[in-house]
Amino acid sequence: MRFRGTVTVALKEGIFDPQGEAVRSSLVSMGYNRVSRVRMGKDIVLTLEAKDSAEAHALLDDMARKLLANPVTEFYRVKVEEA
Amino acid sequence: MRFRGTVTVALKEGIFDPQGEAVRSSLVSMGYNRVSRVRMGKDIVLTLEAKDSAEAHALLDDMARKLLANPVTEFYRVKVEEA
Repeated sequence: MRFRGTVTVALKEGIFDPQGEAVRSSLVSMGYNRVSRVRMGKDIVLTLEAKDSAEAHALLDDMARKLLANPVTEFYRVKVEEA
Repeated sequence: MRFRGTVTVALKEGIFDPQGEAVRSSLVSMGYNRVSRVRMGKDIVLTLEAKDSAEAHALLDDMARKLLANPVTEFYRVKVEEA
């Protein structure tokens, strides 16, 4: 079966996010002064074959740990749906 | 009220995604050869004040169109939840 997995990766709380801070600062200078915080993350959408949703989830979790996320500074979450 | 908005930005279908292609190629060389496609997007999480969820959504939509997404090459979606 074909699945569509989404791995969302973001910096852990407490890790400084200069890219998010740059976006927040741009938004404030554009007049959006009600924005108090911006955090930038990655949204990685993968198409893959697996025998079921549990296998797809396990594969994606593995890929996230080994390549997509840096476990020291980032956390991730995995979502799977049928493609 | 305080809201937590997520703006997810990704390249439109048909726009070449070299970063996604590089990730796909790395995954395949690591043995994950059941991955046929990878698309890289951004996940931008914003904390903001608004009078209600509809106003928060409208503000985020505005920010996405004016700064966060490039309307020529990218699409975006907005999600709002109470913070």
